[in-house]
Amino acid sequence: MNTQELYEKYKTKMHRIADVRNANAVLQWDQETYLPPKGAAFRGQQISTLSEISHKLFSEEELGDALQELLSKDDLSAEQKRNVELTFEDYTKNKKYTSAFVRALSDQTNKAFHAWIESRKQNAFAVYEPELDKLIQLKKEEAQILGFEQHPYNALLDEFEKGCTVNLLDKTFSDLLPRLKELLQRIASQPQVNDSFLQQNFSKKEQWDWGMHLIKQLQFDFEAGRQDMSEHPFSISFNKYDVRITTRIDENDFSNMTWSCIHETGHALYEQGLPEELYGLPLGEACSYSIHESQSRLWENNVGRSKKFWQHYYPQLQNYFPDQFKETSLELFYKGINKVQPSLIRTEADEITYHFHVYIRYELEKRLIEGSLSAKDIPAFWNEHYRNLMNVEVPDDKKGCLQDVHWSHGSFGYFPTYSLGSFYAAQFFKTAELQLKDLNNEIAEGNTANLLQWLRTNIHNKGRFYTSEELCKAVTGQTLDVIYFIDYLLDKYTSIYTL
Amino acid sequence: MNTQELYEKYKTKMHRIADVRNANAVLQWDQETYLPPKGAAFRGQQISTLSEISHKLFSEEELGDALQELLSKDDLSAEQKRNVELTFEDYTKNKKYTSAFVRALSDQTNKAFHAWIESRKQNAFAVYEPELDKLIQLKKEEAQILGFEQHPYNALLDEFEKGCTVNLLDKTFSDLLPRLKELLQRIASQPQVNDSFLQQNFSKKEQWDWGMHLIKQLQFDFEAGRQDMSEHPFSISFNKYDVRITTRIDENDFSNMTWSCIHETGHALYEQGLPEELYGLPLGEACSYSIHESQSRLWENNVGRSKKFWQHYYPQLQNYFPDQFKETSLELFYKGINKVQPSLIRTEADEITYHFHVYIRYELEKRLIEGSLSAKDIPAFWNEHYRNLMNVEVPDDKKGCLQDVHWSHGSFGYFPTYSLGSFYAAQFFKTAELQLKDLNNEIAEGNTANLLQWLRTNIHNKGRFYTSEELCKAVTGQTLDVIYFIDYLLDKYTSIYTL
Repeated sequence: MNTQELYEKYKTKMHRIADVRNANAVLQWDQETYLPPKGAAFRGQQISTLSEISHKLFSEEELGDALQELLSKDDLSAEQKRNVELTFEDYTKNKKYTSAFVRALSDQTNKAFHAWIESRKQNAFAVYEPELDKLIQLKKEEAQILGFEQHPYNALLDEFEKGCTVNLLDKTFSDLLPRLKELLQRIASQPQVNDSFLQQNFSKKEQWDWGMHLIKQLQFDFEAGRQDMSEHPFSISFNKYDVRITTRIDENDFSNMTWSCIHETGHALYEQGLPEELYGLPLGEACSYSIHESQSRLWENNVGRSKKFWQHYYPQLQNYFPDQFKETSLELFYKGINKVQPSLIRTEADEITYHFHVYIRYELEKRLIEGSLSAKDIPAFWNEHYRNLMNVEVPDDKKGCLQDVHWSHGSFGYFPTYSLGSFYAAQFFKTAELQLKDLNNEIAEGNTANLLQWLRTNIHNKGRFYTSEELCKAVTGQTLDVIYFIDYLLDKYTSIYTL
Repeated sequence: MNTQELYEKYKTKMHRIADVRNANAVLQWDQETYLPPKGAAFRGQQISTLSEISHKLFSEEELGDALQELLSKDDLSAEQKRNVELTFEDYTKNKKYTSAFVRALSDQTNKAFHAWIESRKQNAFAVYEPELDKLIQLKKEEAQILGFEQHPYNALLDEFEKGCTVNLLDKTFSDLLPRLKELLQRIASQPQVNDSFLQQNFSKKEQWDWGMHLIKQLQFDFEAGRQDMSEHPFSISFNKYDVRITTRIDENDFSNMTWSCIHETGHALYEQGLPEELYGLPLGEACSYSIHESQSRLWENNVGRSKKFWQHYYPQLQNYFPDQFKETSLELFYKGINKVQPSLIRTEADEITYHFHVYIRYELEKRLIEGSLSAKDIPAFWNEHYRNLMNVEVPDDKKGCLQDVHWSHGSFGYFPTYSLGSFYAAQFFKTAELQLKDLNNEIAEGNTANLLQWLRTNIHNKGRFYTSEELCKAVTGQTLDVIYFIDYLLDKYTSIYTL
């Protein structure tokens, strides 16, 4: 078999694996959107079976042999070579897991997910604890299976962000948090802005229509995706021509939906911008979780909470909700949607205190995986740190440690990518501003086509060719530096709070 | 390994296979309900991959060996023994197919489906013809793979109805059709009933609400299923706790939706009534296509087009649509919804001429599979037979040979089960009337709980334990006899048309 024939064989195998994984993603999407309640148990079983099958397919010796042989070839294109290298990395990692472990993890994840749902209904962490505890044991086992240096949590962090470590995150947070605290204090000494206009009655139907309008304007391709409702907004992709996002609507709180729509659209635009011909191959996949999050946050915050953005969209919003917004000027609206105030719920947090939420989860996960804390200690740790760090009292578990779905998905090591995403977003957006001279005027005119094109060219089209850090350097000329994020915050809040 | 351990091993394997098949069913459901248009090609590929995988899993030598060994055991329960026998039958059949053939069939089915969609848009059979032709070649090949006696079409008929043959159907239709023609002539000599009240404006929203209300009354379990919209109504099951039906709504024609809702509910009640603990095993599956159809038709026609049913529901319907039905009495409504008139569209046909539609498709398929006709001959054959048999002129392909999705799904041999379903329904319903003395009064009071329980006990709970004919004998005391169907029609139309 010559090199190109061998490469084709490898591609066919990867397509089959991608088909199974994406089929499983359809089952998951359906589980969160349309699954009737009694169908949950069998659905969990179906998802476990597909997980096991995709794991088996990706462990086949024949694939390993083909990869080994391809690695020794010198007539692959740079793109082909990179695909093979990354696949071999993934393959080697995947081979560490046994089928039994994959199934056990999938089954336990399913149990934990349903226990989490039930515990939220009862507003009692104790309902969740036994299943979560078993899942944590499996994640500790996983860290051992994967292997690590220095800290077992590093093995799990690496799953979401290659090369990310406890050392690195400790340093990042210890650089960042004092500066955020200082900024927070300066803001606290100024008069608070008013956002009461966001808590009025906004009908579900009209919010839905408004959200769909906005998403369309942001160039979400509805021929290649859709939006539905779910309890927790998320985005998921089955291929670049079928990217789905969800939202939720609170009739008494406008702030819930709009920015979740923009956020998930940011994720979706990335997926819809991946190269088609690379379906199932690493270069047809997103770079990393943090870069994915940089796209959602860039659209949600750097664009979607900017004054220029609302210069264009606020009159439209006022047309959708004339009664609710007739008394509120653009200036007051802009200030209100950027109100800074320590609070209980991560997804509703402002752009500063958001990172305290992440930090608490990070510190907690580190301890759970190293074993210095266990599931039963979560509520006390959680509540104490919310009190110490943000001076907020957690009234119950639902508003505390039961608020996020991530652990019940087995996602330990995920949260830090949210903060990294904000930092990358600030650095990318600054670079875009420098390179697209007219960017801010365009945004003020509701024209984000050039910005999207810039993201497509510099980020989306690259797939996984670069690591996060390499990509950051290729796009911005330097590796990640939180100073961009801090400057962005200073600039924004100095004006809003007249600091 | 002792017998019960071996049986457990067999069960686990069957569960995995069922998981993959049911996952594939989710992909198909999604394809017909929510798939964004550009996602079609990759979805087709994903479905083909899962088809190939479930075929491979069901071809494993290890499973065959386990089945052989189990067949030789004498300490299996009757239920276990029947599961093993039926699985071995299915296994032996499945082994005849190569993976390459399974994939080719799935791929070609996908192509034919999309060509069918496009041909309907363009209202031109020519667009569909090349892909359908390739699919027919594969189905002819499939008949050879499966093997047959006397006629290649028998191999395909057997897929949908075990033991069904051309000889048997030729005889059934030649018994039935003259009697239907005679009845039709007697009806045609009487004044036609009026159904113009069905063609008014009925808002989508209100029709939807009405349909959901009706389904709920019929005891469809919404905790274990759901209804959505699709271009063509269908029912599909992922397990007895997740059974989904779809409907479509024509704002200018009330008759489209209500009876499709009842029909699909009939299918769904069967699936929701299968034994849970037998998931993935033959006895946890429906008996056959014709028995499945007997359930949908029993509810749609024997119950849902009866006067007693509407004695209870018509006042409710009048409440949903007061303007549209205020002038129409129950008597006129009942006559209108049972109007007999030869027409173009199978799914809108009355209970008599329906079987002419089936007969034409049957005769056509027989010729396509034996090779005396090919795809290009379909429109001419179709139009000629509609003219000769029903005296209707087919104005275009969309109202003619493009109306049904079945061929594009590769389902040749399926249509006859629709007629068999009506015949079984009449025989079952007659038996239920004899055994449940108060049945007709209960239906007139909107109480169908006992009828459902009777169907659960006598039919649903049996799974595939019996063949259609065995089941019919067990339930009614004799094998299928079309006389029940003919008597039902005579009784009904004598009164409606004062024959």
